[in-house]
Amino acid sequence: MKILVANLGSTSFKYRLFDMETEQQLARGGIDRIGEDAESNCVVEIGSHAAKETKHIPDHAAAVQMCLDQLMHSDTGCLNSVDEVAAIGFKAVFAGKLSGIKIVNEELLQAMENLADVAPAHNPPYVRAMRQLQASFPKIPLVAALETAFHETIPEKYRTYSVPYQWTQQYEVLRWGFHGASHRFIGTRMAELLGKEDAKVISCHLGGSSSICAMLGGLSQSTSMGMTPQSGLPQNNRVGDFDPFALRLVKRLSGKDYDELLDELSTQGGLLGLSGVSNDCRDIEIAAANGNEQAQLAVDVYAADIKKYIGQYLAVLNGADALVFTGGIGENSDTIRSKVCEDMTFAGIELDSDKNSSTREEGKISADNSKLQIWIVPTNEELVVARQTAKLVQN
Amino acid sequence: MKILVANLGSTSFKYRLFDMETEQQLARGGIDRIGEDAESNCVVEIGSHAAKETKHIPDHAAAVQMCLDQLMHSDTGCLNSVDEVAAIGFKAVFAGKLSGIKIVNEELLQAMENLADVAPAHNPPYVRAMRQLQASFPKIPLVAALETAFHETIPEKYRTYSVPYQWTQQYEVLRWGFHGASHRFIGTRMAELLGKEDAKVISCHLGGSSSICAMLGGLSQSTSMGMTPQSGLPQNNRVGDFDPFALRLVKRLSGKDYDELLDELSTQGGLLGLSGVSNDCRDIEIAAANGNEQAQLAVDVYAADIKKYIGQYLAVLNGADALVFTGGIGENSDTIRSKVCEDMTFAGIELDSDKNSSTREEGKISADNSKLQIWIVPTNEELVVARQTAKLVQN
Repeated sequence: MKILVANLGSTSFKYRLFDMETEQQLARGGIDRIGEDAESNCVVEIGSHAAKETKHIPDHAAAVQMCLDQLMHSDTGCLNSVDEVAAIGFKAVFAGKLSGIKIVNEELLQAMENLADVAPAHNPPYVRAMRQLQASFPKIPLVAALETAFHETIPEKYRTYSVPYQWTQQYEVLRWGFHGASHRFIGTRMAELLGKEDAKVISCHLGGSSSICAMLGGLSQSTSMGMTPQSGLPQNNRVGDFDPFALRLVKRLSGKDYDELLDELSTQGGLLGLSGVSNDCRDIEIAAANGNEQAQLAVDVYAADIKKYIGQYLAVLNGADALVFTGGIGENSDTIRSKVCEDMTFAGIELDSDKNSSTREEGKISADNSKLQIWIVPTNEELVVARQTAKLVQN
Repeated sequence: MKILVANLGSTSFKYRLFDMETEQQLARGGIDRIGEDAESNCVVEIGSHAAKETKHIPDHAAAVQMCLDQLMHSDTGCLNSVDEVAAIGFKAVFAGKLSGIKIVNEELLQAMENLADVAPAHNPPYVRAMRQLQASFPKIPLVAALETAFHETIPEKYRTYSVPYQWTQQYEVLRWGFHGASHRFIGTRMAELLGKEDAKVISCHLGGSSSICAMLGGLSQSTSMGMTPQSGLPQNNRVGDFDPFALRLVKRLSGKDYDELLDELSTQGGLLGLSGVSNDCRDIEIAAANGNEQAQLAVDVYAADIKKYIGQYLAVLNGADALVFTGGIGENSDTIRSKVCEDMTFAGIELDSDKNSSTREEGKISADNSKLQIWIVPTNEELVVARQTAKLVQN
C-alpha cells in the first residue's frame, strides 16, 4: 500500500510518498508559489534521482496533479498509475471535537472552517486544498490526522482552563494541544531507544512552531500549546503564553482595537518580536553572537521558557527518563540545547557538551553521569500520518 | 515611631498599628460597608481589649477618623494624639514604572489612575481613599509600598513577554508580579528559619489571590502573576493564565464583545468558574468531599497548576532549599498542600502527612527524609509595609 502524505501551506504543497509494507519513503517533493503569477518550482526526489521543473500552478489540485505526473514519469517514476495511491493523508490542525483520524468529508471541512479563528494560519489553506482535491481526485480517500488527537489522553486537571464553566462545556475552551504527530513519533521512538514501554519522556519540538509534551508510556500527559497554536512557547512570529488582560492597557495606549492587537501578537510577536531581527532562530543566534543585545534577549527568553516548561513537566511526571530535542531548532541548535540544560542538575539533567556540539543525527547527548538521558531525535511526522492513514483505509 | 498600615477595599478599611521600635502590633481593626446606607461595623482590638461599634460611615476619610477615635479612647486607647502616627502605609498594587516605596503624591495617584485597567479591583478604591486621606489628614505622610517593587530583581529573561518589542519598551508590558510584601516577608523569615542567607525558597501565597515566587537569597527570581493580577494561578473568581486567542472563538460563539469576555474572565473565572460552587476554597473542598465532581475538578486544577509552577521554579532555581505555604489557603488547607506535594519525590519533596494535618501555625511539615524542607509560615504583609514605610519617613 502506498500513502501520500501532504503538507500544505497557503501557497505551497509538500509531500512524501511511503510504501507501507516497508515504511520506506519512496519519494518526496514539493511545489511553491501556488496561485501566484510567477512560475512555481516543482521538485521531486525519487530514490537517488532528483528533478526540478518550473511551471505555472494555479491551485492545489494542479499542484497534486503535477506531483503525480512527476511520480509517474516513464523513466524515473515510482508509480504506474494514480490508482496506486491508496490515500492522501494530511496533518490537519484543528476541528474541535472532531479529533482523531478522520476521512475528509463535508462535516469535517465545515468544522475546520468554523474553527478558522483558532488556527488562522493553518485551517483555511487546508480546507481550500482539501476541497480542490476532493473534486479532482474523487477516487482517492483523503484522510485528516488531527494534531489534537494525540493529546486526548491528557488528564482533565491539566486540560481545563479556569474559565467560566460554560466556556469549557459549551465552547470547548480546553488545552487541546498540537504537534501531535511529532510528539507521538518521539514517544514511540524513545520507547524503542530506551527499551522501556512505560518511559517518562519530555519531548521538545522546537522549530518555526514549538511545543513541549510530557509523555508517560507514549501517552500525552500535558503539552505547552493550549487552546490555539498561538500559545505556549514563543513561536517564530507568534507570541506564545500571554496575559490577556494586558490587552486592555495596550488597546488604550495604542488606540488599536482588540483584533488588531491579536493580529499583531500572532504576526509580530514571538522570536521576531523579541529580537527585532528575524523570525528565524539561526539569524537571531548569529546576531546575538555579533553583539546584538535584543537578539541575545530573544535567545535567552526562548531558552528560559523551554526550561520552565521542562520544570513543569518534571513535576507532572514526577521526574523523567529522557529529555528529547527535535524539530529544526531542537535538532540543530546546540546553543539552545545548551542553555536549556544549563543548571538543571537538581533533576539529574547533565549535557555532554562535546556530544551536544557534534551530534547531527539521532544520538544521545547526555553526560555519562546524567540521570536523565538527553537525546536528539529527528522527528518524522509524515511517517506517523502515513501509518494512521493506512490503518484507517485498511479498516 | 508608630506606623498605621491600611488595607483598603472598595467598601472596607482594615488596619494594623505597629510600634516600630519593637515591631509589635499595638492594635488592629476594621470597618465595613463604607458609603453604604447600612451602618458599618467598626471593630478594634488593642492588646486584649476588643470593642465594636456600629455607625454610618460615609467614606474612607470618615473610616480612618473613626478608627483613630477608637485608638485614642480615653480608657482603652493606645494613642494620645493623631500626631503620634508617623505615617500611614499602603500595600498598593500597581503604578507601572513608579514602583518601589513612594510618598503618595499627585504623580503617583495619576499613575495609579492611569493603570486602573491593569488592576481594576485594586487601583480605583486605593486612589479614591488616598485622596480623601490626603485632604483630611494633611500632616500625616501617606506611603505606598507598591506590590511590584519586590519583583524588580527578576532577570530580564524571565520578565519579558514575547510581544512586539514596542509593547515592552513603550507600553511597559512586562511580567511585573504582585504580592511583593508577602513574598518578601517569607523570604526574610525563611532565611532566619533555615539559617541561610542565600537560601533558594519557593513561596506559595495561596488565598483569595494566589501567586508563587522563586527567591534566591531573598530576591525574587520569577513569579506567577504577570502583567496583571488576573494572571498566573487560578484566583478566587479571576481566570489566571489563559490563551488570549481563545477569545476570538468565544466572541464569535457567544456574541459578546472582548470587554465583556474579559470582565467575565475576571469575575466569573478562577475557582468560581471551575467549581460552579463558590469562590471560596473552603466551600469547594466541602462540596468536593460530598461528591460534587465539578468542585473536585476545581480542587484538582488548582493543585495541578500550583504543582506546575513549583516545577517551573525548581528549574529556575536549579532545585530549592524550602517550599513554603502561606496565605489563607496555604496556611489552612492540608488538602491542597497534600495534593501539591504528592508525587514530587523526583525533586526531594516529601510531606509528613501527620504534621501536614496537625500544624496550625508556623512549622515544618516535611518528612524527615525530605530533601527540601516544607513549611507553613503565616505571612505578615502589614509588617513588611510598616518596615518600608518607617524607613522612608525616617530618611
